[in-house]
Amino acid sequence: MKALAIDVGGTKIYSALINEKGQIVSDVEKYATPKTYDEIIATFKKIIANHDFDVVAFSTCGAVNNDNTRILGSTGNIVKEYPKTDFQALSDKPVFVENDANCAAWAEYKIGASKNCQNSVMLTLGTGVGGGIIVNGKLLKGKNGAAGEMHFKMRTDKKRKCTCGAWDCFEIYASGTGLKLTGEEISSNPDITTYDIIGAYKTDPIMKKIFDRWQDDILLGIVGLANLFDPDCVVLSGSMAEFVDTDYLTDEVNKQIVTTPTKVVKASAGNHSGMIGAALLAFEKFYGKS
Amino acid sequence: MKALAIDVGGTKIYSALINEKGQIVSDVEKYATPKTYDEIIATFKKIIANHDFDVVAFSTCGAVNNDNTRILGSTGNIVKEYPKTDFQALSDKPVFVENDANCAAWAEYKIGASKNCQNSVMLTLGTGVGGGIIVNGKLLKGKNGAAGEMHFKMRTDKKRKCTCGAWDCFEIYASGTGLKLTGEEISSNPDITTYDIIGAYKTDPIMKKIFDRWQDDILLGIVGLANLFDPDCVVLSGSMAEFVDTDYLTDEVNKQIVTTPTKVVKASAGNHSGMIGAALLAFEKFYGKS
Repeated sequence: MKALAIDVGGTKIYSALINEKGQIVSDVEKYATPKTYDEIIATFKKIIANHDFDVVAFSTCGAVNNDNTRILGSTGNIVKEYPKTDFQALSDKPVFVENDANCAAWAEYKIGASKNCQNSVMLTLGTGVGGGIIVNGKLLKGKNGAAGEMHFKMRTDKKRKCTCGAWDCFEIYASGTGLKLTGEEISSNPDITTYDIIGAYKTDPIMKKIFDRWQDDILLGIVGLANLFDPDCVVLSGSMAEFVDTDYLTDEVNKQIVTTPTKVVKASAGNHSGMIGAALLAFEKFYGKS
Repeated sequence: MKALAIDVGGTKIYSALINEKGQIVSDVEKYATPKTYDEIIATFKKIIANHDFDVVAFSTCGAVNNDNTRILGSTGNIVKEYPKTDFQALSDKPVFVENDANCAAWAEYKIGASKNCQNSVMLTLGTGVGGGIIVNGKLLKGKNGAAGEMHFKMRTDKKRKCTCGAWDCFEIYASGTGLKLTGEEISSNPDITTYDIIGAYKTDPIMKKIFDRWQDDILLGIVGLANLFDPDCVVLSGSMAEFVDTDYLTDEVNKQIVTTPTKVVKASAGNHSGMIGAALLAFEKFYGKS
């Protein structure tokens, strides 16, 4: 059995065929995300027409409903009409849709760093911060499917406006964007970049101070999540995750929590974990296999 | 069918008989919590010997394991040996144990303010802050049973030490203790009490400023919880809950969240919701009734 997995982001669309073991069994195709809604739909149709598969599995930006059929609302950096997409209408085969961070969390649970952990929290540290939470072996979706948003407060005094429009969310501290803002605050250099910081934090004391503050903000967020969820582990994925010290985070989290010991680990399901998780979830939904 | 419910707190122990509808069908008995472990166990045995029942249901301070048989670890203001209690050994009938905030959340879900809400967060605002979270109609327990602790951060700059030993948890801002600390900071009066504030916040501008800051800290915590859980509602219980403005909180939360609209409501299952929830959970566990 094969799933045609399609990963939809604000800048890139990927596709690949994936088997029931979560293995990628084709080339991974890559497209720039079109700037108009019609072109996006045309891209989906072209990908679908070009392959043989049993099910289509979308891993997408945006919150997805509990039926895994549609996007709940606005999604940031993709055309505003995107949520109106009727995914099932794209194919005669079953079509499944889930949020990309949820898909990546599922891939880690099935074949990656949180394998066999019935309770875990995954944080995707990139330009923003994504989240996928697994409770008793199921994705935490909430009443409408929007759960797992990492927009809890880090301060109460309105210091940084988050991309969501509210103040001082975890995302605007723990993301790459957050690292740059921490860099600006500590260095008083408005032109400092994440590359400046990441390139020099092991040797330059100022850059180390910036990096440590950023990492400690991530730590404080994880402490709160561990107290809320008592997870087996917290998985860090995304482009910024490679730089953090998970041994340090594990030690410090376990010093600070009131729940039971946990661990912080790096994701291991690979760059295409979103597509893999979408495929495995689709197999489970339509064929009861996982 | 009747449950003998026993509510164990650091200062008081209550007991009552409760039927399958969650109705209290006896007098509620009240005892001061003894200062020694042996006396606590003797109190339990005396209560149990004096009643006819089908099941014993403990609603207790402390985190409780996923089998609902024992306390996981230290519990604050009760004798340190309390976690070693073998609850089942206290009776020939089935014995059930659950954390008091979880029990209260369950009572609200079954007969109270969150009735029929499959996803909800309950906050108990008292001297401290308790939490009980319901996900898809089940208590959120986590890997060992300790989930639902409201110890996520409100600041990153180490301003207030929480009772848990870590810095700046939600509890030390949103609790009655937090209200007093906010009062001390704003009024510069170290002797200010919660009674001073609650008694005058509707007429005195300084007391209003203190109260509003405290209520807005609660608001910010709820925003984070709503973004994580996408709940049908957030239920406020406990002695401090009667003072907050749930219409204001609902409006503000819905302005700030990225998830779908929710509401903030006051608990309605009564003062003994812990015992009621414990009884209903016990019936469900041992007899499949809820």
